Amino acid sequence: MFTKGQATTIKSLQEKKYRQKTGLFLVEGEKSVVETLNSDFEIKNLLVTKPFFTKYLKLIKDKKVIYEIVEQGEIEKVTSLESNNSALAIVKQKIIPDLEIKGDEIVLALDNIRDAGNFGTIIRIADWYGIKKIIASIGTVDMYNPKVISSTKGSFTRVEVYYADLPKLLSKTKIPTFGAYMTGESVHTLKFPKNGILIMGNESNGISHDFDKLISQKVTIPSYGQTLEKNGRAESLNVAIATALIVDNWKRSQNSG
Amino acid sequence: MFTKGQATTIKSLQEKKYRQKTGLFLVEGEKSVVETLNSDFEIKNLLVTKPFFTKYLKLIKDKKVIYEIVEQGEIEKVTSLESNNSALAIVKQKIIPDLEIKGDEIVLALDNIRDAGNFGTIIRIADWYGIKKIIASIGTVDMYNPKVISSTKGSFTRVEVYYADLPKLLSKTKIPTFGAYMTGESVHTLKFPKNGILIMGNESNGISHDFDKLISQKVTIPSYGQTLEKNGRAESLNVAIATALIVDNWKRSQNSG
Repeated sequence: MFTKGQATTIKSLQEKKYRQKTGLFLVEGEKSVVETLNSDFEIKNLLVTKPFFTKYLKLIKDKKVIYEIVEQGEIEKVTSLESNNSALAIVKQKIIPDLEIKGDEIVLALDNIRDAGNFGTIIRIADWYGIKKIIASIGTVDMYNPKVISSTKGSFTRVEVYYADLPKLLSKTKIPTFGAYMTGESVHTLKFPKNGILIMGNESNGISHDFDKLISQKVTIPSYGQTLEKNGRAESLNVAIATALIVDNWKRSQNSG
Repeated sequence: MFTKGQATTIKSLQEKKYRQKTGLFLVEGEKSVVETLNSDFEIKNLLVTKPFFTKYLKLIKDKKVIYEIVEQGEIEKVTSLESNNSALAIVKQKIIPDLEIKGDEIVLALDNIRDAGNFGTIIRIADWYGIKKIIASIGTVDMYNPKVISSTKGSFTRVEVYYADLPKLLSKTKIPTFGAYMTGESVHTLKFPKNGILIMGNESNGISHDFDKLISQKVTIPSYGQTLEKNGRAESLNVAIATALIVDNWKRSQNSG
């Protein structure tokens, strides 16, 4: 049984204002909490159900974390997830080192991604492809939003997110920049370099015009829908899907010689 | 102002039981309703706000559809979307021809996809890549679920979904079958044929063992995460993302000779 004060703290961490004030955030559900226990994130407080505790006893003890065994119903009362029968952690936000891009590194840059699920999924994709750094424009949703965190399926522990004035940052870099557009060179034929920055645009508006002069290469994902039919074809792909497709083609182009 | 009876009908169409009984389904929001007006789906009833009506006057008149202009608040009361300030249509389910697979056609087969958003996104991806047919196992979520329909962003008008006893159907086909697994031939190096069936598995369990002897070729999406690090890497990709990646590589492999 945890206190009313704890419940209030947890609920308030669903709001960005309170996360910024405290430097804390929520990690919810079995998979995400286990990944956090395995990471170097500092857990301030851990609420677990008895089955979760039994299953991960060693991990919890090794991490030397302050934990409390509670009823599932108590977690359900405060979680932001639709259901949570396992665990919830209050975690300290990490201070990441200054951004530095290596010579063989792909970095993602996000211009105003607004949907928390999309952002979380992009972090998970980055992790799959070994991308370690994401630069997010100031207008991008907060990475510590509980829905972003849960959508990453634990990948937030391995990918660093930098918030920055993106056009300003890109105007100073010498690294080649690639932007996802509806028109551009096909990712099926483009030979990508070893390192570069891939810019993905907002869900509704794409990449903003602030970037017009900052993109070295526009790229596009070829579509195969029959445009001749009277009722058209799919007009676009979801931004997370598009990110996966471009990064995958980037990697494939490097392997093919 | 529409009647209480209409409101009840709309609400009930959020349930599969009632959709099956009536052969109707809901299409909600500007983009989806416009795509439906442009398709050969039969609209039984259309509720529109004044701004939507003004914007799409010609389209509505041309389709000769029964429409009613209502206040935004009335649509909000019955819509399954988080918000809907434009239009809602009650649409007749379409009878599709018997399944027939052509010699140059890629067909998707879904084994027990449970998440409506994933299914809708897969339909949208199919549309992008010119895939016209999806075979869904009996356990797959209903394609007329309002969340499936809204996630397709209108692509449901161009992709036909067949529900079938999938293992039985595959046991009879001579078309090459490809299954998405965590281990298999890399999609970056495999040369795909002109036609084939791509089987994608359930979100949690992957492709069920019923298919073990029915897959001609296991395929996998290469991961580049550093498995040597102590805290691992992303273990999987979302099923819609994986579908997009495999189909994209399929198409790319055909183009490259």
